[in-house]
Amino acid sequence: AYSSGVKKVTLIPGDGIGPEISAAVQKIFTAANVPIEWEAVDVTPVRGPDGRFGIPQAAIDSVNTNKIGLKGPLMTPVGKGHRSLNLALRKEFNLYANVRPCRSLEGYKTLYDDVDVVTIRENTEGEYSGIEHEIVDGVVQSIKLITEEASKRVAEYAFQYAKNNNRKKVTVVHKANIMRMSDGLFLRCVRDMAQKYPEIQFEERYLDTVCLNMVQNPGKYDVLVMPNLYGDILSDMCAGLVGGLGLTPSGNMGLNGALFESVHGTAPDIAGKDLANPTALLLSAVMMLRHMELNTHADKIERACFETIKESKYLTGDLGGRAKCSEFTNEICSKL
Amino acid sequence: AYSSGVKKVTLIPGDGIGPEISAAVQKIFTAANVPIEWEAVDVTPVRGPDGRFGIPQAAIDSVNTNKIGLKGPLMTPVGKGHRSLNLALRKEFNLYANVRPCRSLEGYKTLYDDVDVVTIRENTEGEYSGIEHEIVDGVVQSIKLITEEASKRVAEYAFQYAKNNNRKKVTVVHKANIMRMSDGLFLRCVRDMAQKYPEIQFEERYLDTVCLNMVQNPGKYDVLVMPNLYGDILSDMCAGLVGGLGLTPSGNMGLNGALFESVHGTAPDIAGKDLANPTALLLSAVMMLRHMELNTHADKIERACFETIKESKYLTGDLGGRAKCSEFTNEICSKL
Ligand SMILES: CC(C)[C@H](C(=O)O)[C@@H](O)C(=O)O
Ligand SMILES: CC(C)[C@H](C(=O)O)[C@@H](O)C(=O)O
Repeated sequence: AYSSGVKKVTLIPGDGIGPEISAAVQKIFTAANVPIEWEAVDVTPVRGPDGRFGIPQAAIDSVNTNKIGLKGPLMTPVGKGHRSLNLALRKEFNLYANVRPCRSLEGYKTLYDDVDVVTIRENTEGEYSGIEHEIVDGVVQSIKLITEEASKRVAEYAFQYAKNNNRKKVTVVHKANIMRMSDGLFLRCVRDMAQKYPEIQFEERYLDTVCLNMVQNPGKYDVLVMPNLYGDILSDMCAGLVGGLGLTPSGNMGLNGALFESVHGTAPDIAGKDLANPTALLLSAVMMLRHMELNTHADKIERACFETIKESKYLTGDLGGRAKCSEFTNEICSKL
Repeated sequence: AYSSGVKKVTLIPGDGIGPEISAAVQKIFTAANVPIEWEAVDVTPVRGPDGRFGIPQAAIDSVNTNKIGLKGPLMTPVGKGHRSLNLALRKEFNLYANVRPCRSLEGYKTLYDDVDVVTIRENTEGEYSGIEHEIVDGVVQSIKLITEEASKRVAEYAFQYAKNNNRKKVTVVHKANIMRMSDGLFLRCVRDMAQKYPEIQFEERYLDTVCLNMVQNPGKYDVLVMPNLYGDILSDMCAGLVGGLGLTPSGNMGLNGALFESVHGTAPDIAGKDLANPTALLLSAVMMLRHMELNTHADKIERACFETIKESKYLTGDLGGRAKCSEFTNEICSKL
């Protein structure tokens, strides 16, 4: 569907360093002749007719029409009643699976050199249900909500992902020894789905065990699928193993479209100074290209990015270099 | 209170390798002339008058009388209706704070050499409340329960611990950006407690951020305090950084007593073969001695243990050596 003609893509540049790194990605895409057209939108919440703040309709329409978007980091507006804008977007577009590949970069040394895992996180419910009550003074409950529908959906996505990307194994990560009913339901849904993919290995592991093994021997793992909060934790931890959130991409898969984003912060301290590292957003954009079946462009850009990092002549400050964002970007463009 | 005379200590040898490693600890304590007397009890659940399985009364009485115990690994009995025996003990004795120090061992090389953190975990509620419901078919909720009482209690324990152990900083680990009310309450309780300890640094961090930073720069952290599940995860992760659960001790602090335990498994595959590593249980016993203010004995035993590991002549299989449990144990004894 995506492979012919010029496709429109929604771009949410974001806050802080968002605009600079978005511009960097756009420049690189132009240099690589990627056949897409950007439609930039602003998602800063506006007050609606009901008096509540929400994502502007134009932004919602753009994503709903284009069915694909790229997003920079967003600041959560300060003040009561504002929930994270990132979460609002996940909800608005029913982005049910969050996919974060973490791979050791040949050119960037960390303590680990054999990380190649993909965390697939249920992205709509679990501990993120937002349902909380104060029962009596000083006694609060938060509800972790697990449904068969959402669990099956993300389970299916995980196995399809493994299949389409030539992955060998799926590990479901859970604490069903403690949350027998909720994690138990999630576990059963993934276990049932595994039956339909006999060619893919399947294993069940406790979250604590995975955390322990991941820091000792990340090579043990391949694709991991899990409830919302566990994915939040594990994906950050895995990003840490390969160099941090500045280097790792992320994609949110929805029923009606997909939104790719860098998950690092807005870095207000360096915003506007041409010092930011655009790699996470660029690699997210590369994931997006693969999703659009523009694989040749994806491969080319990814290679140019990895090579630039490997040569380490034009590294930004976060990677220990002194290059500006624009120098790093130009170097990638010159390789295309 | 503990420092004069011979004190009775309850010993729960546990299952699998439990009896061997317990015997090893007893032997080492004898060699070190530790002025305690062991009272071994069995906690295998028995069916009570109401037909339900529970911890035998004799074991309960022993812990309640002695107010201090050491426990090897326990198997959770198979079959419906059996919850983890570890959890049952935490509940029975109101063990509200779980303390797990993780320190890089000079003699045992891992990827990290500067880990020196202590996770302090709320141990009675949170995601471990056990309250779950199936609302309708395929829709389950688990309740995360946070109370001011339990949060304050563990917060106070954390700062007292920091103070008594010359620790510089306490970090509260939370996701109050998502669970605003429950983690929000926990966070506020710790924040309030911090006011009373101006000499101890205090910081607030998101769980995902801590996971990321911990694998990159564990030296950043000192004492960490957090809700139940987060402690389960972080303590295992930190154990992973320094060599795994076979090397790290754990203590559960209660209102009426304290229970020290190794948190590794029962290792049924090597049970009874004199191959197990008693280090985690021994270091837990050392923590117990400090709790009993038997610091001289604690220091002496700890030093002998660390030296034996450092010399690496008598390492058990899990540490890459070929020594038997008894050889490792004898070497420690010979150093005392
Ligand atoms: C910003 C925050 C709400 C978010 C989360 O907790 O999911 C972030 O940590 C992430 O991983 O995308
Ligand atoms: C055995 C299990 C129930 C337990 C837990 O989840 O707390 C364990 O992982 C621990 O850390 O003590």
